Amino acid sequence: MKLVAVGTMAFDSLETPFGKADRIIGGAATYIGLAASYFTKSTTLVSVVGDDFPTEFEKELISRGISLDGVEHRVGEKSFFWSGKYHNDMNTRDTLDTQLNVLENFNPVVPESDREADFLMLGNLTPAVQMSVIEQMTKRPKLIVLDTMNFWMDIAMNDLKSVLKEIDVLSINDEEARQLSGEYSLLKAAKTIMKMGPKNLIIKKGEHGALLFSEHEVFFAPALPLEEVFDPTGAGDTFAGGFIGFLAATQDISFENMKRAIIYGSTMASFCVEKFGTERLLSLDKEQIESRAQQFIDLTQVEINF
Amino acid sequence: MKLVAVGTMAFDSLETPFGKADRIIGGAATYIGLAASYFTKSTTLVSVVGDDFPTEFEKELISRGISLDGVEHRVGEKSFFWSGKYHNDMNTRDTLDTQLNVLENFNPVVPESDREADFLMLGNLTPAVQMSVIEQMTKRPKLIVLDTMNFWMDIAMNDLKSVLKEIDVLSINDEEARQLSGEYSLLKAAKTIMKMGPKNLIIKKGEHGALLFSEHEVFFAPALPLEEVFDPTGAGDTFAGGFIGFLAATQDISFENMKRAIIYGSTMASFCVEKFGTERLLSLDKEQIESRAQQFIDLTQVEINF
Repeated sequence: MKLVAVGTMAFDSLETPFGKADRIIGGAATYIGLAASYFTKSTTLVSVVGDDFPTEFEKELISRGISLDGVEHRVGEKSFFWSGKYHNDMNTRDTLDTQLNVLENFNPVVPESDREADFLMLGNLTPAVQMSVIEQMTKRPKLIVLDTMNFWMDIAMNDLKSVLKEIDVLSINDEEARQLSGEYSLLKAAKTIMKMGPKNLIIKKGEHGALLFSEHEVFFAPALPLEEVFDPTGAGDTFAGGFIGFLAATQDISFENMKRAIIYGSTMASFCVEKFGTERLLSLDKEQIESRAQQFIDLTQVEINF
Repeated sequence: MKLVAVGTMAFDSLETPFGKADRIIGGAATYIGLAASYFTKSTTLVSVVGDDFPTEFEKELISRGISLDGVEHRVGEKSFFWSGKYHNDMNTRDTLDTQLNVLENFNPVVPESDREADFLMLGNLTPAVQMSVIEQMTKRPKLIVLDTMNFWMDIAMNDLKSVLKEIDVLSINDEEARQLSGEYSLLKAAKTIMKMGPKNLIIKKGEHGALLFSEHEVFFAPALPLEEVFDPTGAGDTFAGGFIGFLAATQDISFENMKRAIIYGSTMASFCVEKFGTERLLSLDKEQIESRAQQFIDLTQVEINF
């Protein structure tokens, strides 16, 4: 089923304990689109780029069945740019530079032909912009997944609360869940947040895995213990892309299937962090993905006879 | 099969965000013994107390099938005392007071009749004292599990490395694993630590679950998302007691059975933190334990058809 993903397409300059990467391709929509492309060939990205964004990379995305019909190209303007440096623990980072450029007045437009899409992924953006996308849909999607961050909780909490009322699944990290709910216990945080609108909540805990909540159920997906996390940039978006890509491909939004989708999201994220930027996501095949997903399953496999 | 557990029996004064508890019973051996008692009735505690330690509590332990034949009673001396205050996140705490008392010159003596025990649990103590217990065993136990902490890595690393050569399973937390190995990645840390002696390593991650490693296998047990962690004191010892108690009861030290043991250890720890001190561990029944263990299993249960 058709998937529409809204988010940035950008340049990132990164510094990790393993090295530096200068002006490589990044952005939420890029990672979401690439991760989803391993599950479905019906994804449309909605984004905005300047004329510095490489045509070659766009062709690469298109060759993977990703439609860029919703990507606005602004002549004479520059793409969004972010630069950051990761600390040794890889869980924390400093932003060195942020150049909004084309993002300063981004008004995403969903192509006419995609306004009845069944799956909508709202990558991390101003909550008001996320809302404007929902309003463009002529049919209520079967599933709306939203990613956001603490920054919007600090400066646009009211807008965020409005958009939360309109979505099905919220995907945030543990600190954000605590900030949004005012609860330290993630179980209490989940209950509070689901009262704000979303029927399901995903709490990402980085190297500690991810939790999926519904009103009466909870599922925990572990993170794979890795030798090295090379570059965590894009891991959250890749997770989201794998998650919603799998759901769109299987057309099943039951809690049971969301559990599988979390495993595939985690699988895709575990590949993403192995190399700089999108590099690893460009060189995967179905077999590697299934084999890695099996590792996730095996990691918690245990039988007890009661 | 017979289980010998060595560790402190003590008084704790605790302050958590939920309240205070003054001079309640604590100590590693106490928690280990209580947790193990739900699985096996052949546990001998080896410890030392002063004449302030309540006879009533000793009777309680004995009534649960725990032998105190290895507990030295020092007349005119006081039991070990620890006082601490937990921060709001419950993962960090400040030690307010430590009075070693009887622990200052603790020379544990394993009762003659227990020196051929098959299961030996060495609770957190000076590594040299842990070594002296191993040396008292007239037959090499089938399984020796050791708990330790960063403090001994700081001041007695050589002694710790000596005792690590003699044990089978080391149980430490993630920060301790990183300190002991000098590796940030827990996978690398595990490989380094298992080269030091133990064939298996348990890395406890508190609210993030626990990892079990062997040379070629890894298993992850989640932590149950709880509404509230009331008092984390003794959770690690309770985990160890449930782990080795289950193994001693089932007499199976395969990796598959250690996975089950980790689930039961986690189960016991999840009860422990629900109330102050040993309170919750004194009021459990088998049914509650099996039902909670099932919750742990269900939390990661997912089926994917490849």
